[in-house]
Amino acid sequence: MSSPTGSSDQSAVTVLGLGPMGRALAGAFLDAGLRTTVWNRTPGRDGELVARGATSARTAEEAVAASGLTVVCVVNYDAADAVLRRPAVADALKGRTVVNLTADTPNRARDAAAWAAEHGIDYLDGAIMTPTTTIGTPDAVFLYSGPEALHRAHRPVLDALGGTHTHLGTEISRAAAYDIALLDIFWTAMAGYAHALAVARAEGVTARELAPFARGIATILPPLFERGAEDIDNGRYADGINPITSAVSTMSHIVHTSEEHGIDASLMRAAEGLARRAIARGDGTDGFLRVVDVMSPH
Amino acid sequence: MSSPTGSSDQSAVTVLGLGPMGRALAGAFLDAGLRTTVWNRTPGRDGELVARGATSARTAEEAVAASGLTVVCVVNYDAADAVLRRPAVADALKGRTVVNLTADTPNRARDAAAWAAEHGIDYLDGAIMTPTTTIGTPDAVFLYSGPEALHRAHRPVLDALGGTHTHLGTEISRAAAYDIALLDIFWTAMAGYAHALAVARAEGVTARELAPFARGIATILPPLFERGAEDIDNGRYADGINPITSAVSTMSHIVHTSEEHGIDASLMRAAEGLARRAIARGDGTDGFLRVVDVMSPH
Repeated sequence: MSSPTGSSDQSAVTVLGLGPMGRALAGAFLDAGLRTTVWNRTPGRDGELVARGATSARTAEEAVAASGLTVVCVVNYDAADAVLRRPAVADALKGRTVVNLTADTPNRARDAAAWAAEHGIDYLDGAIMTPTTTIGTPDAVFLYSGPEALHRAHRPVLDALGGTHTHLGTEISRAAAYDIALLDIFWTAMAGYAHALAVARAEGVTARELAPFARGIATILPPLFERGAEDIDNGRYADGINPITSAVSTMSHIVHTSEEHGIDASLMRAAEGLARRAIARGDGTDGFLRVVDVMSPH
Repeated sequence: MSSPTGSSDQSAVTVLGLGPMGRALAGAFLDAGLRTTVWNRTPGRDGELVARGATSARTAEEAVAASGLTVVCVVNYDAADAVLRRPAVADALKGRTVVNLTADTPNRARDAAAWAAEHGIDYLDGAIMTPTTTIGTPDAVFLYSGPEALHRAHRPVLDALGGTHTHLGTEISRAAAYDIALLDIFWTAMAGYAHALAVARAEGVTARELAPFARGIATILPPLFERGAEDIDNGRYADGINPITSAVSTMSHIVHTSEEHGIDASLMRAAEGLARRAIARGDGTDGFLRVVDVMSPH
């Protein structure tokens, strides 16, 4: 790993990728008065940014050469690699820093870091946990992993993006791991909500009628998540109040109601299957989070 | 439907079923000074309640004959029907009221109400949305459906259970429909959380490390649920910020990371399948809740 000396210029930054998120990032840098260079694979996305003072680079190599720090935010690592790993771009990045805010798997982050190290590029991986509308506001949440000194060195520029910037550790994959786990919670919950709305509708209950109660259910989740975390880390699964056997009975009611209406129940069937496997293992009196073990390889 | 005259005695109540929830209900009635008669299929569950002043009935028919109002809370409607539909019990219930707080499907509630009407029994269906520990406290949440006059007549006794008592409508199945939909949200979210913990653990992230961020994700759900409800009822699915195509890309990252670690990804695969079906239908630019239509029969 090279030293983060190329990053000493705290007044310039390059943004690669001008989708909605990339444009929001570049806009926040401009608002903070930073000399901002932008580039996008498909041209024509930088009009508004240029009007606000951004420099439009003709090529990715020209873009990364303009700043000590390049922030990448594209659709996934296939797209990021297609830009960064072109020899002309890799050469231009030598001795500079890449902060890759593109979302993908922890394995892809490990692979990108290994590639960057081979090419003398300082590399920090990151994840943006909040929507584009939060960028530049106190509500934005950024996670980073990789060399701590690198994070510290670029923190003044990254702070221009607003919100909180948490360094999760030196292991490069941590930001992606958190991102994956948190989006897993988010999208599974949204899918469950969608299913509940489908069942409610089939029973003549509108989404608006259900909403205040759905809000009530969502409100009890955070403390349950927190208590569950303690238990899991301590290997405690006992839950006299809510054993898996009782959860599975509820789940089968949901599956039956759903299928009586011809509604796809694959999601709840998957959850029920995990619970039934826990019971088959003899863990039926444990709390539901025992399914963490059922899911995991033995 | 007979008139709720048999319910005029507001000082007595019978509880059938003395599992943890049934015992909590009977305890709250006793605390409120009501003459409480209890019965359970398996004997020996009423010791503490009798010590607190409850009357232990030898048979279910004796139990229901002791009060104008019988509250039933057993494991499911198979168990409830096995008690209530015995001719001796049905005879004893004639002209009296049953409030069935047993959890099951909306169809079972409809079926039970039809049976009760045939036998001259006043019937209210209900659901308890909060754990046993909330019973008798302001945190308890009870939902009811069925004849409104019946709910009004028994409200003074039911209020002894604490918390909020909402009458959702005269259609008997509504309490069960809400119950099913809300527990669908709850258990799917818990299953998603369990999966996230499994993936995090495989990536060397402890549950406690993830917890504050998991809480953050859980906290953004209630307003998203509420906004989604408006959209669904209005048939609006557009969501420029978070189209299904973008959700499905995240979902596939979750599935890949999960399966790279040998972790069961059936839950997220089910969610991803729904999203991909929405895209195949040409709805890829819509918001994720478009999957409500994908799940539902056409």
